[in-house]
Amino acid sequence: MSHAVSPLATPFPALPAIAGATPRVARARYKEWDRCDLTFVELAPETAVAGVFTRNVCCSSEVELGRANVKQGRARALIVNAGNSNAFTGYRGREAVEQIMGQLAAHLGCAAEQVFVSSTGVIGVPLPKDKAKAGVEAALSAAPCTWEDAANTIGTTDTFAKGATATAIVGGKTVTFSAIIKGSGMIAPDMATMLGYIFTDAAINPAYLQELLSKAADETFNCITVDSDTSTSDTVMAFATGAAGNTPINCGGCEGADAFAAALTDVCRQLAHLVVKDGEGAQKFIAVSVTGAVSDASARKIGLAIANSPLVKTAIAGEDANWGRVVMAVGKAGEPADRDRLSIGFGGTWAAKDGQPLADYDEAPVAAHLQGQNISIEVDIGLGEGRAQVWTCDLTHGYISINADYRS
Amino acid sequence: MSHAVSPLATPFPALPAIAGATPRVARARYKEWDRCDLTFVELAPETAVAGVFTRNVCCSSEVELGRANVKQGRARALIVNAGNSNAFTGYRGREAVEQIMGQLAAHLGCAAEQVFVSSTGVIGVPLPKDKAKAGVEAALSAAPCTWEDAANTIGTTDTFAKGATATAIVGGKTVTFSAIIKGSGMIAPDMATMLGYIFTDAAINPAYLQELLSKAADETFNCITVDSDTSTSDTVMAFATGAAGNTPINCGGCEGADAFAAALTDVCRQLAHLVVKDGEGAQKFIAVSVTGAVSDASARKIGLAIANSPLVKTAIAGEDANWGRVVMAVGKAGEPADRDRLSIGFGGTWAAKDGQPLADYDEAPVAAHLQGQNISIEVDIGLGEGRAQVWTCDLTHGYISINADYRS
Repeated sequence: MSHAVSPLATPFPALPAIAGATPRVARARYKEWDRCDLTFVELAPETAVAGVFTRNVCCSSEVELGRANVKQGRARALIVNAGNSNAFTGYRGREAVEQIMGQLAAHLGCAAEQVFVSSTGVIGVPLPKDKAKAGVEAALSAAPCTWEDAANTIGTTDTFAKGATATAIVGGKTVTFSAIIKGSGMIAPDMATMLGYIFTDAAINPAYLQELLSKAADETFNCITVDSDTSTSDTVMAFATGAAGNTPINCGGCEGADAFAAALTDVCRQLAHLVVKDGEGAQKFIAVSVTGAVSDASARKIGLAIANSPLVKTAIAGEDANWGRVVMAVGKAGEPADRDRLSIGFGGTWAAKDGQPLADYDEAPVAAHLQGQNISIEVDIGLGEGRAQVWTCDLTHGYISINADYRS
Repeated sequence: MSHAVSPLATPFPALPAIAGATPRVARARYKEWDRCDLTFVELAPETAVAGVFTRNVCCSSEVELGRANVKQGRARALIVNAGNSNAFTGYRGREAVEQIMGQLAAHLGCAAEQVFVSSTGVIGVPLPKDKAKAGVEAALSAAPCTWEDAANTIGTTDTFAKGATATAIVGGKTVTFSAIIKGSGMIAPDMATMLGYIFTDAAINPAYLQELLSKAADETFNCITVDSDTSTSDTVMAFATGAAGNTPINCGGCEGADAFAAALTDVCRQLAHLVVKDGEGAQKFIAVSVTGAVSDASARKIGLAIANSPLVKTAIAGEDANWGRVVMAVGKAGEPADRDRLSIGFGGTWAAKDGQPLADYDEAPVAAHLQGQNISIEVDIGLGEGRAQVWTCDLTHGYISINADYRS
């Protein structure tokens, strides 16, 4: 299965090497394909780790173990398997993950809990232990590769490799982020999952890294939606090697903490947008801005109701300024809203204000805006100060073709 | 805009006349079309009324007034406007509804609150008062028509007329139901809404009728979904003229109450299924049965998560027994579930049991089942006694064509 490259694809950026984080790739041949499908990132001792994981209660063993093991705060290795998600495979799936953790721990001389494993691909088939073992063995002796190689290797149904970078000044030292992500839709055929990994040379306390990652994810990954479906394996992890030599960031008041948090959030936002841009069948990137809600949380819920509405998404696909569908989506969000205070706009032009169509509404600039690739929908609820921005893509024939015309 | 008749369409059934409920139709010409678009049903004095209305907070004035006025329990007239939903039209929209209520009240010599109005069609355009006035005038002097005429007249983007009937024995008397509904999808281009009306000659206390209608709606209309979107105008009303002469049903213990409730629920279920069968782009009717949940409410939430999942719906469109997508949808419902107790089946054949694919899973009968028009998905959560059934249709290129290729 190979789909045309997304029209919203962007070139892979130049990602700097991160001292203390070394990527390698190998062929485990989890599927009948001739490509690398196992990624190994070796991490320097004392690398801080944090992670955010799917809320889907039917999650994979990888997610269960990862969620439990980030709590001890340190990582020595990341392994990502592509081609088999190992989800819904019972105890045999769990044994395969534990085998990989043990194999790496023996090689690196670390605790098994410091080895993190992700898998993405077909479900219901236990990850084959023999292929995993040989694949890991090959990766251990492979030459280091680029982040672009790693980004390609973690991908499954992705139509382009996705990466992001940023820097921040922390206590006079420059710290650098390089990050990769895979995923085309919240979930794709056979549950191709969103998996994102952020590497930085910053020195930071693991618990504080977790706090910052959770907050950044809330404003970025948790504000995107392709089809409202939630994978059983979604994972975003951050690894901080400490090689930059900055005074460790231990709390919100520390020198450079704000700069670090801003750069981390920036990287997360870049990655999140890239996932939307590889959304199945996506032709347009849609930013939904909600203002005037009773709270930020309420604004986000309203924004996601709009971004998840098939009728709003098909209207944008059809380049139709159908503000009535936006009204409907606001109303179904279950959040405080007053029909007679609601205003709706596209690309900065109001179509309706205070619950009524604008008498002098000029559709020409809106029509021109909707013909572009980057669409914005503005909604003012008129009740308070709450605001949020969420991102999605349009719903097209391409989505149906990928998901319905495809047979497992 | 006229779409091909749904492949799931069924012929309009023979609906009996209901003594005390007389339908008439007329041309108000709310749109540039040459068809009847205004329906008037005159109801005998003391007709009991009950209604359930959209929970969308951006609802129309029709819904606001209807919700308030069913509380007094009696109805003399129903007016349904097709071609203009009068939603999001501010005070001018409300004035138009109040004009219609006043016009009917003057003609029938009843209180304005006993006149119920619904509207469906384009939004953002106040219902034109002059057309409404002339249309009502024409309807008042029109000859009575059939229920099929009325079903056609309340329709907008519907591809076939929809009706249902049932009878019940109440205290030795036969009571009869005739019911009509419109809607193709929870919401269609320009917010074509679900509007359903049930007429019966039974004598029943209005408050008890409301109790029974709310319960029936909960098990039927609230268990269907086409695209997870909720119209601003959804309305289902029941009118009981009392002409059957039965001893009035006043409570749950009354003679015939159970039979009446069963017939009412049967009619609601028939109507609900017809709406799904006219779902935009629908090629298959899908029943999702959930058992073993911790409660009935939990089972319904899980069922709706499955029925609303674009990935499940596209899999069925592709005749693909993709049980992994069902697992994903169960997991994202946010309800108690245990991956290792979950079982998934199609058409009565289990594909996965207790969290793992069945070793002896025979896909042949499942593949044959999925090629039919009536699909069943069975999910057992394995935790308790909660059960529910919900209904939906598949998600096809037809849905995208209707909603994206269409321009307002």
